[in-house]
Amino acid sequence: MENRRPWEKLRELIKTNDVAHVKAYLDGLKAEEIVISMSHIGHDNQLRLLTLLAPEDAAVVMEDIPEVQAVDLLEDLRARDAAAIIAEMSSDDQADLLTELEEEDARAIIEEMEPNEAENVRKLIRYDSNTAGGVMITEFLVFDEKNTVGAVVADLREKSEEYERYNVQYIYVTSENRFIGVLRMRDLLLSKLSTPLSQIVVKNAITLKENAPLEELISFFDTHDFYGAPVVNESGALVGVVLRKDVREAEAELANKELLETQGIVGGEELRTMPVFLRSKRRLSWLSVNILLNILAASIIAIYQETLSAVIALAVFLPVISDMSGCSGNQAVAVSLRELSLGVVKPFEVWRVWLQEVSVGLINGLVLGFLIGFAAWLWQGNVYLGLVVGGALGINTVVAVSIGGTLPLFLKKINVDPALASGPILTTVTDMLGFFLALTFAGLMLNYI
Amino acid sequence: MENRRPWEKLRELIKTNDVAHVKAYLDGLKAEEIVISMSHIGHDNQLRLLTLLAPEDAAVVMEDIPEVQAVDLLEDLRARDAAAIIAEMSSDDQADLLTELEEEDARAIIEEMEPNEAENVRKLIRYDSNTAGGVMITEFLVFDEKNTVGAVVADLREKSEEYERYNVQYIYVTSENRFIGVLRMRDLLLSKLSTPLSQIVVKNAITLKENAPLEELISFFDTHDFYGAPVVNESGALVGVVLRKDVREAEAELANKELLETQGIVGGEELRTMPVFLRSKRRLSWLSVNILLNILAASIIAIYQETLSAVIALAVFLPVISDMSGCSGNQAVAVSLRELSLGVVKPFEVWRVWLQEVSVGLINGLVLGFLIGFAAWLWQGNVYLGLVVGGALGINTVVAVSIGGTLPLFLKKINVDPALASGPILTTVTDMLGFFLALTFAGLMLNYI
Repeated sequence: MENRRPWEKLRELIKTNDVAHVKAYLDGLKAEEIVISMSHIGHDNQLRLLTLLAPEDAAVVMEDIPEVQAVDLLEDLRARDAAAIIAEMSSDDQADLLTELEEEDARAIIEEMEPNEAENVRKLIRYDSNTAGGVMITEFLVFDEKNTVGAVVADLREKSEEYERYNVQYIYVTSENRFIGVLRMRDLLLSKLSTPLSQIVVKNAITLKENAPLEELISFFDTHDFYGAPVVNESGALVGVVLRKDVREAEAELANKELLETQGIVGGEELRTMPVFLRSKRRLSWLSVNILLNILAASIIAIYQETLSAVIALAVFLPVISDMSGCSGNQAVAVSLRELSLGVVKPFEVWRVWLQEVSVGLINGLVLGFLIGFAAWLWQGNVYLGLVVGGALGINTVVAVSIGGTLPLFLKKINVDPALASGPILTTVTDMLGFFLALTFAGLMLNYI
Repeated sequence: MENRRPWEKLRELIKTNDVAHVKAYLDGLKAEEIVISMSHIGHDNQLRLLTLLAPEDAAVVMEDIPEVQAVDLLEDLRARDAAAIIAEMSSDDQADLLTELEEEDARAIIEEMEPNEAENVRKLIRYDSNTAGGVMITEFLVFDEKNTVGAVVADLREKSEEYERYNVQYIYVTSENRFIGVLRMRDLLLSKLSTPLSQIVVKNAITLKENAPLEELISFFDTHDFYGAPVVNESGALVGVVLRKDVREAEAELANKELLETQGIVGGEELRTMPVFLRSKRRLSWLSVNILLNILAASIIAIYQETLSAVIALAVFLPVISDMSGCSGNQAVAVSLRELSLGVVKPFEVWRVWLQEVSVGLINGLVLGFLIGFAAWLWQGNVYLGLVVGGALGINTVVAVSIGGTLPLFLKKINVDPALASGPILTTVTDMLGFFLALTFAGLMLNYI
């Protein structure tokens, strides 16, 4: 029970409305303790806590908890309170949260923000969140090339407070607002104060375009060992900085999204602290499609009822054939999803992928077909029954991996989310074919079984 | 066809053995073009390319391509060549690759490395790769507190070449080899050259323990806006630095591993460029367990064959019940896996999770049960058949989400990988129960159907 304490203590403290104590207690907690405590004190206490704390402290809590939880809370806070908290976050976190909000909620909050910050955020949320513009931060150090090292150092000293919040690794240099290059802290250290930046700026540094897609950012930071890269617009002006850590974060989010979607959780993250009806509605939206597809597939069995009642033993193996074909197919889907996100295959390579996949399908089809066929033979002492179910599963396995391997590429090419759609389509087709094969084979051998 | 070119061109260039041209061509390619080209030129060309290039250039290629591919290549390179390439990588990448290698391959390569580098790597590969020690790098700047700012600046200027490779953001300060604090580049800038580090060092900076688990690192960087954090051993000596980007990378790898495992790809990444037999063997290891579980589940149907042959229409719905229960259960599994990795639930909270999950199960069970029951009724014009299949799926859905929601927590508690084991266990249990319910209900209503 030791490990229950934190949130119970937090609940009590919130009741007391004693800000100082609450803050002191939170400061003492590890991030993971804050995360689990927040998800245990309930929605109302969460809101009370956030309004109780000073905005900058509330912002820290918001950055700790899962994004979906933070969004949920922002929607129920008064716009003014929400704006005050968001104002304390870095620009990329601001944009992330506001894009997740209901449009009118977001607008209400932005209107409560300082004009210039609001303006900045409005720009950011226009970007697709999986592009350089969507991932970049807009807090960075920029100086015109005419400045001297001395002037820069003086500015750094003066504004050091404000710059604390920045992830200062590079200083960016512009000339008439056009980006011309970078300057590393180290270079500043090693130059005379009188040196103009134009002399020590590292020219034609690599820049990213506003609309560069996530895949490009990922491979960019794979090749280049930078902490961040400058983002420029068409006119060559510096609009932001993409940090490596934020790209990694976006990458992890993408992988998690795919994990959820392949398992049938659609519409983004689901936490069990969300309202029951919302959760069940979102899950049903996917399940109800699946049940229709399932009934469609099962209709094949209905057509062959005579055969089935003649060979009732077959009914035992139909679910096995359906399930195993799904398993084999989903393995191929998973590999294709990975190869796509690793960039080792491109959507147009359907044929090449099929060739590489079908060989595995043939081997596994043989093995699985033999296993189930042997089981059927042993059980009923009828080798023909074994041939029927074994043959059906064997052939169906080859088809399943063929579809599973190539379908994600095809879906990607036509811009349908492969993680979401591959599974249901795959299992429907393989179920229908599996039932069809088993029952026609049985029909042909009716006299021997 | 445009997008086929890069690897065909690369293949030709490799044939010519013209290093200069190959390098020039690679330098012109984007990271993603290198990745896809490598996976298209075939294993032998890959090896020829790596031996052709200078070690430092080969290292760049190795860092671009997926880790599993790099490991595969290292195993087939001559140990000396492999060692030369690895020597050009950062310590964390070295450790990552060497830990993935067959033990004797790794040993052979390490023996070819410089004694001090070999020594360093030997230390690193002893750490679990999902701990601070496994993620940290060992290239960092450290000075004794007795040094002056001037001495440090001089050292930076002198060794600037070597430090290029480091991700210098902080300078670490020790006293008699014990870590005492950090120094930011910025602080150096703003102090007199005569100042001893002891005066400007930020004392009691937060440190990480060597064996801190990945979850702790993730939440550490969620709370703290640092680029990296120092890692100390029991005796307080500085042994390495964990960089935020490397933690994010480990996080993404973990998510991808779970994605693959839930889909039945075990034993790590699979790329279709791997040998066919290895791939089919690894997939079969999981499939063969599943087929046994499936046959076990199907045996329930075998027991009730009389009932089934009396109500042959039921055979149509058994696969639907089995598949839909699996779908509902897997949704719950996915949510639990996410909540575990987000740290919003702990393995001991089985009861709490069940309460939150069962409510969704009841709603969805009602809806799905009604849908399929209604379909059965319409099709056979027999309301009792509808009650049988609808009741069976409804009840089974509640059980499926109950198991799906809680099983991952239980498996985690007993240290079984939940992403891997949850699915098969879940579907077996729900299949058996689903078949049992449908067939017993049918048995009870035999006179009405």
